[in-house]
Amino acid sequence: MDIKKEWIEFIENSTEQEQKAMKLFLNSLQVKREKTSLTHIASLLQLKTKRINEHILEMEMPNSPLLDNSIGIVHGGLTATLLDTAMGTMASLVPGNKRGAVTVELKVDFLTPGVGETFICRAEVVHNGRQLVRMDGKVRNEKDVLIASATGTFFKLSE
Amino acid sequence: MDIKKEWIEFIENSTEQEQKAMKLFLNSLQVKREKTSLTHIASLLQLKTKRINEHILEMEMPNSPLLDNSIGIVHGGLTATLLDTAMGTMASLVPGNKRGAVTVELKVDFLTPGVGETFICRAEVVHNGRQLVRMDGKVRNEKDVLIASATGTFFKLSE
Amino acid sequence: MDIKKEWIEFIENSTEQEQKAMKLFLNSLQVKREKTSLTHIASLLQLKTKRINEHILEMEMPNSPLLDNSIGIVHGGLTATLLDTAMGTMASLVPGNKRGAVTVELKVDFLTPGVGETFICRAEVVHNGRQLVRMDGKVRNEKDVLIASATGTFFKLSE
Amino acid sequence: MDIKKEWIEFIENSTEQEQKAMKLFLNSLQVKREKTSLTHIASLLQLKTKRINEHILEMEMPNSPLLDNSIGIVHGGLTATLLDTAMGTMASLVPGNKRGAVTVELKVDFLTPGVGETFICRAEVVHNGRQLVRMDGKVRNEKDVLIASATGTFFKLSE
Repeated sequence: MDIKKEWIEFIENSTEQEQKAMKLFLNSLQVKREKTSLTHIASLLQLKTKRINEHILEMEMPNSPLLDNSIGIVHGGLTATLLDTAMGTMASLVPGNKRGAVTVELKVDFLTPGVGETFICRAEVVHNGRQLVRMDGKVRNEKDVLIASATGTFFKLSE
Repeated sequence: MDIKKEWIEFIENSTEQEQKAMKLFLNSLQVKREKTSLTHIASLLQLKTKRINEHILEMEMPNSPLLDNSIGIVHGGLTATLLDTAMGTMASLVPGNKRGAVTVELKVDFLTPGVGETFICRAEVVHNGRQLVRMDGKVRNEKDVLIASATGTFFKLSE
Repeated sequence: MDIKKEWIEFIENSTEQEQKAMKLFLNSLQVKREKTSLTHIASLLQLKTKRINEHILEMEMPNSPLLDNSIGIVHGGLTATLLDTAMGTMASLVPGNKRGAVTVELKVDFLTPGVGETFICRAEVVHNGRQLVRMDGKVRNEKDVLIASATGTFFKLSE
Repeated sequence: MDIKKEWIEFIENSTEQEQKAMKLFLNSLQVKREKTSLTHIASLLQLKTKRINEHILEMEMPNSPLLDNSIGIVHGGLTATLLDTAMGTMASLVPGNKRGAVTVELKVDFLTPGVGETFICRAEVVHNGRQLVRMDGKVRNEKDVLIASATGTFFKLSE
């Protein structure tokens, strides 16, 4: 049975919940088709980036069925993914960093339950050293409730 | 245009890479249909759990196109998701913990590039306190290379 | 040989460096004699506390020969001691916390070499939960150079 | 009034508790006089090092009035000092590291109250990278009770 037949069969028997998830999957594939450099997970999580200034960027992640953990709040691992992506992206953009940066270590403090319509991560450079970039990240929902706070160390890749 | 027509159109124009991703998505939907308590992200990441003893469990995550970050190794956020899920699951299973446990804080050290066919996370209880469970987690690939190491604090939910 | 004779003998043969250290030791003993609730280490490090507002306090630690590590900058462990003491003191003072608070975990990021005449730690409550107080701490020198940044989780002791 | 007269006066009016502390201070000065490379804090805390193998060393810190926090257990900052010193010392001794190593970040988990006669810190190299050494540290008392667990990242100083 080929993939087309399998999908049609699944769609024809799908519940409303499943249709929501399929819409997300299809959307992420369509977005990635247009923007091939995007990672699958960034596309699935619908991450949108906004540069604030030389040291700060914001990354937004709208809530969706994909984010839920077993008790109906945002899965801590996906909050960590948002934080790592936002801080790593900002760390890659510091002056004098030509080939990007990799995460050395990440510490996330989960402060309040991850509920809300959208989650905004503010990633800020704390210290831009010769080899290491030290970052701070905060995740808030649309009501400005602080959900998680993080720090990260990133290693600059040299040429 | 309804969801079925949209999917058919996307499938008919899809590349081999996209077909691999679609297979993963469909598979995760089928798995979740059968096991409704599973979260979407655990289903997408194809996480499989094996209890080793009273204090240790292992969780496996096979490599897939979904895991890649922008430089072709496993996205640190997904390694963190594997660690948080494995440690949180084990923390929920300690004796005297009836309603599960939530993550207080998570610290991940990324040691070597996340390459391999499959990633095995070993989660172990370090200290089972009255309210807090302190966990240790290690992620290795199938060749036993240590990729990431983590610690986490979990808060027991009381009745 | 009793303690008095031993001290006299040591003092009579002491170098200028040793006299500086002895002055610090004597001073810490005198301070502790007057303020018995003070810990030896707080007295030795000459820690001084200033409450800024309901959520913030500052603790100052003047530089001294006792602080040096092997390469002539402040020993990271003593920077950590300053941070733990300041954050723990502030955590003990949050409303509704009657019996103090103990450190669950402490994460310190060392950003720039610890040089300066005095080190000021600003400790701030990030989240005051039912059982846990989440703290942030920053150490700067008298020129406002950020030397270290930390987060800590404290557990409230109940009655 | 000169230092000798001040000390004599203090000694003559001292309590038993104060005499214990003075003995510690004098001892630390005498030890440092013989071994000038030792730091004041290592001398005060009476740290003793034992190399176990190529990747592991142990550092012992006997209990003393200097270690007490306000509730009669070992001050968390001094446990952190022991961990930082032991892990940093071991990190400085890895093959190919000629000029020592500085602490990038330190994460300490306090697991059980710091009580006991002596505290033994086992510091182990987890990963020896090109620039970074990743360390693990555990503090146990003489009854093998695990008191604190830590991880640290150290940066190798190049020539």
